[in-house]
Amino acid sequence: MPVLNLRSEFQAPDLFEEMHAIGQRARAAARGIALAPAQTKDIALRTIAERLRGAQAEILAENALDVEAARTAGQTQALIDRLTLDPARLAAIAAAVEKIGALPDPVGRQVAAFERPNGLLIERIAVPLGVIGVIFESRPNVTADAGALCLKAGNAAILRAGSDSHRTAMAIARAMRAGLEESGLPADAIQIVPTRDRAAVGAMLSGLQGCIDVIVPRGGRGLVERVHSEARVPVFAHLDGICHVYVAAAADLDMARTVVLNSKMRRTGICGAAETLLVDRACAATHLAPLVAMLLEAGCAVRGDADVQAVDARVTPATETDWRTEYLDAIIAVRVVDGLDAAIAHIETYGSHHTDSIVTADRAEATRFLAEVDSAIVVHNASTQFADGGEFGFGAEIGIATGRMHARGPVGVEQLTTFKYRVHGSGQTRP
Amino acid sequence: MPVLNLRSEFQAPDLFEEMHAIGQRARAAARGIALAPAQTKDIALRTIAERLRGAQAEILAENALDVEAARTAGQTQALIDRLTLDPARLAAIAAAVEKIGALPDPVGRQVAAFERPNGLLIERIAVPLGVIGVIFESRPNVTADAGALCLKAGNAAILRAGSDSHRTAMAIARAMRAGLEESGLPADAIQIVPTRDRAAVGAMLSGLQGCIDVIVPRGGRGLVERVHSEARVPVFAHLDGICHVYVAAAADLDMARTVVLNSKMRRTGICGAAETLLVDRACAATHLAPLVAMLLEAGCAVRGDADVQAVDARVTPATETDWRTEYLDAIIAVRVVDGLDAAIAHIETYGSHHTDSIVTADRAEATRFLAEVDSAIVVHNASTQFADGGEFGFGAEIGIATGRMHARGPVGVEQLTTFKYRVHGSGQTRP
Repeated sequence: MPVLNLRSEFQAPDLFEEMHAIGQRARAAARGIALAPAQTKDIALRTIAERLRGAQAEILAENALDVEAARTAGQTQALIDRLTLDPARLAAIAAAVEKIGALPDPVGRQVAAFERPNGLLIERIAVPLGVIGVIFESRPNVTADAGALCLKAGNAAILRAGSDSHRTAMAIARAMRAGLEESGLPADAIQIVPTRDRAAVGAMLSGLQGCIDVIVPRGGRGLVERVHSEARVPVFAHLDGICHVYVAAAADLDMARTVVLNSKMRRTGICGAAETLLVDRACAATHLAPLVAMLLEAGCAVRGDADVQAVDARVTPATETDWRTEYLDAIIAVRVVDGLDAAIAHIETYGSHHTDSIVTADRAEATRFLAEVDSAIVVHNASTQFADGGEFGFGAEIGIATGRMHARGPVGVEQLTTFKYRVHGSGQTRP
Repeated sequence: MPVLNLRSEFQAPDLFEEMHAIGQRARAAARGIALAPAQTKDIALRTIAERLRGAQAEILAENALDVEAARTAGQTQALIDRLTLDPARLAAIAAAVEKIGALPDPVGRQVAAFERPNGLLIERIAVPLGVIGVIFESRPNVTADAGALCLKAGNAAILRAGSDSHRTAMAIARAMRAGLEESGLPADAIQIVPTRDRAAVGAMLSGLQGCIDVIVPRGGRGLVERVHSEARVPVFAHLDGICHVYVAAAADLDMARTVVLNSKMRRTGICGAAETLLVDRACAATHLAPLVAMLLEAGCAVRGDADVQAVDARVTPATETDWRTEYLDAIIAVRVVDGLDAAIAHIETYGSHHTDSIVTADRAEATRFLAEVDSAIVVHNASTQFADGGEFGFGAEIGIATGRMHARGPVGVEQLTTFKYRVHGSGQTRP
C-alpha cells in the first residue's frame, strides 16, 4: 500500500478515492470474515500473534522512528511514554491478541428463540456488525487490540492511527495482515489508513458511502468531540467519565474509605476514576473528616463546598465548574448532600452517565440508587475503577460507551455483533 | 398547546425554540416514565384506551376536517382511505393500545448476569431508551400505536404527524395525554408537534440538542430517504423491502406454489411482500412454468429474464432496474439462477437486507442460505409476509429496521429498550 501524503486541496479527490477504495475492500473482506468458522478466526489470531513476535525487529525499528519524530516535534514526555515500544510491551501486545483468540466466539450465538402457534420457529442469532472504523491517537497497542477484537467478532476493521504512531501502526498492521493471509482469511479484514492527512478522518466519519457501520474513537476529549460532532454513522464512545462515589448515612466507614480511595487514586488517568465524592449530611459528622483526611494524605487535592472546607483547612473551594470537570488527576471535588434524592439529582445534573457508585449497608437505598441513576454502570459497595471490559469478564474491550444505542458500558466482542432472525417453517403462509 | 403556523424564515427561530422546549419537556417526562412501575404503565394504557373511546365524537369530527381538506387539496383516494376514521377503526385503535398494555414489561428484565472471581455480581438490565421521535404521514393510528409502544417501553415520544392527518393526530394525542394525567404519569410523555411547518421535521432530525435519542420514520420512501440523509441521531427504519423467494432444486412444488403466492399476493403493498422470484435452473423445467402461470392467473404481472419469457408468452422482459425495484404492487420480477451461490449473489447485489426466503427440502442448502444471506430476516419454507412484529409474537411493532445497529427486523417494545450494568459488591477494590 502506498503511503500517501496528500495535503493540498487539489489532491483531496484522490484521498477520497483512496479512502473509498479502502471502504470497499473492507466491505468485501467483512463478508469473508463474517462467514469464517470460529476455529479459523482463532487460528488466525494465534498466527497473528506469532507474526507480531516475528516482526519484532521491524516493528521496534519503525517505532524508534516514530519516537524520534515525536521528540523532534517537541511532544510531551507522557505522549512519548505511551508511544514507546520495547520487547516486553510488544510481547504483551502479542499475548493480548492470543487471549482475544481464546475467548468464546460471539458470532452465531442463539440470543433468543420462540415457537409461534403456527409452528414457525424463530431464532435471533448474533451476527457480525460489518465494518468498524477505529480512530486512535498515540498508543500503538490499539492497532493490534482493535484489529483482533473486530476480527474475533467477525468484522472488518479500518484503523486510523494518530500521526505520532503512524509508522508503528503500519508495521503492526503489516504483520497482522500477513497472519490473516497465512490463515486463509482476507488480509483486508484489517486495513490501516496509509496517510497522515487529517482529511482521512473526515472521510471515515462520513461512513465512506455506506462502507463503515460504526466508528470507535480511542483517544482524548478533542478527538471524541470531533467524532461526535461530525460522524454520520453510529459511534461507540464516551466523551467524559465524571464518575461519582456517594457515601450514604448507612455506609460502613472502613468500606467507604477503601472504595473512595481506590475509586479516586488507584489510577487517576482512566475514565472510570472517581472525580466527585458525595457524602450524606446524615453521616458527615462521622465520615466526612476521615475521608477528606485520607484523600489529602494519599496526595489528592480536595476541593469542597463550605461544609467540606469546614472539616479541613487544606480543602480549597469547589466552584460550579468543579462538579462538571473530569480531572483525570489527583484532584477530587467533594460535596455534602441531603440524602439519596439530592445525591441522585447531583449525579443526573453533573454526571456523564458513565459509572457511579454508592456505599451503603442499606439495601433499599442501594436498590433505589441502582435504579434511578441513569448511567451505563451503577455500582453498590465497590470501586468505580471496575468500569473495564477485562474486569467485567469480557476478555478485552474496544472502549467504553456512554451512548444509549446498541452498546453501553465496556464494549467487548459481544457488543461488536448485531443479530438476524432465522425463521424455520414447513410451508406456512400468512392468513 | 398553541397550534403554530410558522412559515416564513423570519419566524424560524421561534419554531426552533418551540421544538427545543418540546424536547426538554420530553426529556423530563422520560425520567418519570422510565421509573414508573409496570402496573402503573399498564393502567395508564387501559385508561388511554378508555379516553380514546370517550373522545370518539371529537376525534371523528377533527378527522372529518382532515378528510375534507385532503379532498379539497386533490389528494389521492388511497391517501384519503388511509386517513379516514370511523367508529370501528377508532375502536380498533383503542383495542390495540389495550393490547400493548397487556404485553410483558420490557423494562427491568435481567438480560445477563455473571459473577466475577472477586465476588462482584454483574447484571445487565433492560432500561428505556429515552426519548423517541416518530415522524409519520397520513395514518392516524400511528399516533396511538407509536405513543403506546414508547410508553410501554418506558420512553417519552415526540410525534410528528403529516399535514394531512394533523387535526386527527392532535385530537388522538389530547385523549392520550388526558389518560396519562389521569393515571398520575407525566402528560408530556406523549407530545405531538403542534405545527405543520416542515422545518419541525428538520429540528427533530437534528436531535433537539440531545433531547431525542432515536428517530423512527413511518411512511413512504421520500420521508425515509430524507430522514436517513439528514438525521444526526440514530434511525430505526427500512428504506426498501426488496424481498426475494428462492425456489431451489429440492423444493416441493406445491409448497413453492403456496409460499410464492402468499409472499407476493397476500398483500402487495407491505414491505414484506416479495418483489423477486429466483428459480434454480436445476428445477426450472418442472417448477418455473407452473409458478409463472399461477402468478399470472392470480393477476400478477410477471417480468422475467429470457429463460422466464421462454415458458410463457405473457411474461414481459425484466431489465436491470426490475431487480432493484420495490413494486409494492401486483408485479413480480422472475429470474432463473444457477443454484444457491448465484441466488445468494443476486440477493446480496440487488436486495435491501429486509426479508428473504428459500423453499427447499434440502436442510444443508437451507442452512447455508440462512447463514449467508445478510438480511434482517431470513426464512426457510415460509412466506416473506411473516416479516411483522405481530407475527413474530412481539404484540406490535413501531416499524421494521434494516440497519445493523441496536434494532433489526420488527421493532417491538423490547428493541425500544437499552440496558445498564448493575454491579453488586461487598467492598471490592480493583488491584
